[in-house]
Amino acid sequence: MVKFVGVTIKDIAKIANVSHTTVSRALNNSSFIKLDTRRRILSIAEELNYVPNYNAKSLVMKKSYTIGLFFTTISDGTSSSFFKEVINGVVESLDENYSLFIRGLDTYKDFSTINPAKFDGIILMSQGNIDDAFIDHVIEKKIPIVVLNREIDNPHIINILSADRKGVEAAVTYLIESGHTDIACIEGREGFKSTDERRLGYLDALEHNHLEVRKEFIVPGKYTMKSGYKAMQELLQLPTKPTAVFCSNDDMAIGAMNAIAEAGLKIPEDISIVGFDSIGYSEYTTPRLTSVKRMIEDISRLSAQKLLAIVNKEISDGEQIFIETILMKRNSVQVREKK
Amino acid sequence: MVKFVGVTIKDIAKIANVSHTTVSRALNNSSFIKLDTRRRILSIAEELNYVPNYNAKSLVMKKSYTIGLFFTTISDGTSSSFFKEVINGVVESLDENYSLFIRGLDTYKDFSTINPAKFDGIILMSQGNIDDAFIDHVIEKKIPIVVLNREIDNPHIINILSADRKGVEAAVTYLIESGHTDIACIEGREGFKSTDERRLGYLDALEHNHLEVRKEFIVPGKYTMKSGYKAMQELLQLPTKPTAVFCSNDDMAIGAMNAIAEAGLKIPEDISIVGFDSIGYSEYTTPRLTSVKRMIEDISRLSAQKLLAIVNKEISDGEQIFIETILMKRNSVQVREKK
Repeated sequence: MVKFVGVTIKDIAKIANVSHTTVSRALNNSSFIKLDTRRRILSIAEELNYVPNYNAKSLVMKKSYTIGLFFTTISDGTSSSFFKEVINGVVESLDENYSLFIRGLDTYKDFSTINPAKFDGIILMSQGNIDDAFIDHVIEKKIPIVVLNREIDNPHIINILSADRKGVEAAVTYLIESGHTDIACIEGREGFKSTDERRLGYLDALEHNHLEVRKEFIVPGKYTMKSGYKAMQELLQLPTKPTAVFCSNDDMAIGAMNAIAEAGLKIPEDISIVGFDSIGYSEYTTPRLTSVKRMIEDISRLSAQKLLAIVNKEISDGEQIFIETILMKRNSVQVREKK
Repeated sequence: MVKFVGVTIKDIAKIANVSHTTVSRALNNSSFIKLDTRRRILSIAEELNYVPNYNAKSLVMKKSYTIGLFFTTISDGTSSSFFKEVINGVVESLDENYSLFIRGLDTYKDFSTINPAKFDGIILMSQGNIDDAFIDHVIEKKIPIVVLNREIDNPHIINILSADRKGVEAAVTYLIESGHTDIACIEGREGFKSTDERRLGYLDALEHNHLEVRKEFIVPGKYTMKSGYKAMQELLQLPTKPTAVFCSNDDMAIGAMNAIAEAGLKIPEDISIVGFDSIGYSEYTTPRLTSVKRMIEDISRLSAQKLLAIVNKEISDGEQIFIETILMKRNSVQVREKK
């Protein structure tokens, strides 16, 4: 194949008989271009052996081709399954030009290095109110942002959420329908919005089924296996033990299952367990763990698509999107009596 | 604080009474500069409210501030714990300028987009020979590279490896010393170098202890929980069942434990299990899983440090570094008789 050195977008535009902008849109996977035209332009670009000059492009188009992917923290309380699903989902939606800048906000003293020259856009996996200062900074700097996981009260921001509260209510209702009335809740990390949402889902289910809320049945955890293990040990020391426990994530459920086995008790015969997240490991615990599946990979994929649409100026306004959860029924819940 | 608009490296050099290069080294965290000098320069930069201009910097210094982090694949056979540890280790070693470009090589048709303008350097988590074409391409393009996980026969490349074979030999020797002679091996994914290394470690232990190798005790797996589950089911159908099984990773060990429980057998009373990786979940299986710990986070952290040292021209030649594993003894191995 003949190589044409220094082929530019203008050359391609001339040959394709379209505008500079159209070529640029085709090369950037914009959806504002007909599929036919896009294919024709890409085939011309390929024939001419066009190689984009990223650095020059950065200066001209003011693009850095870097997406910031921030978590509240990537150490404490962020499980590896969750982390991998988020990155996989985001990477799947990015074309080959984009790099990710992945950091936990807890490693920042201030946000002076977060600027539009560095980021085309930012995806924030927001776990708590503590991120508000960061969101304010990003908005002030006019960097496009999509906030996941936590409800944001700003109509101009794209906010993608999992309907955790409804999902937990459905899971705890399933326990009640299976004949359980003494149902405990091991909570997530304090300060995380998801902790509050899931607690509310648990309380909704009790209330709608006219069951009493018992304070000693609500035990704090930290989203880690160890905290689930310890919380379960506490529950096992109560004079009236629960017959079922909802755990705010699967890591804690795995820790709780470990504590139950160590105490010589059986799941689900003695105690039923429901988790949240439905991570891969939940299918291979003994017994297999019933859990609420949050569509994290879908949410992450969608977040990157929406962000690129803002970056490419295809959409400009905010929206709030709720993604439903699914209850994955496996073998960790005992049916005590038919309803 | 007064803001000085447009402060450059030259301004800082003048005030600090050092060369342009020294300032640049200080700002880029080079280790070729005294700590005192570096601190003094950073404090001047801070006082002047210096903001690096990344795009201009990219063109002048020919730096993209992007590190490519490639895996052979990020879907099949790459566990989430492994993935998170690799990214955490690399991110910890990068300063705030660097972004990561994370992809699986199995998503590439060719490597024409892998060029020096795009990457300051590349870290390859190499899982099999199939990556050789990629390594050749990167060397040809003169992009600095550090190869992890798989031995590379090139003295000019930095190659960081886990001593898997020795680690597995130690683990299987521990089974033999615990009184086991019928020891099976569930292998990793075909084509992965780690699969071969770990099989060799298993064979070394048998040979050094004068035990016969029994073909029916070596069962293929794919590094997934499901494949461990299926491989264990096969082993349980043998006329003479093994009393201990070495699993080439923890995900397969978790699948195998599930199959054992489903068959109504007990761990470790009926069958002992040893895994590899010592992921977080291995501490919370029932019983807790004895496993070979590979220092993935250390290896990844070191890889980024070495790569930056090449990028900053502090080192130029290759080296091969082996990181030892550690056997984490937990509760999944039964001692059958004192040696």
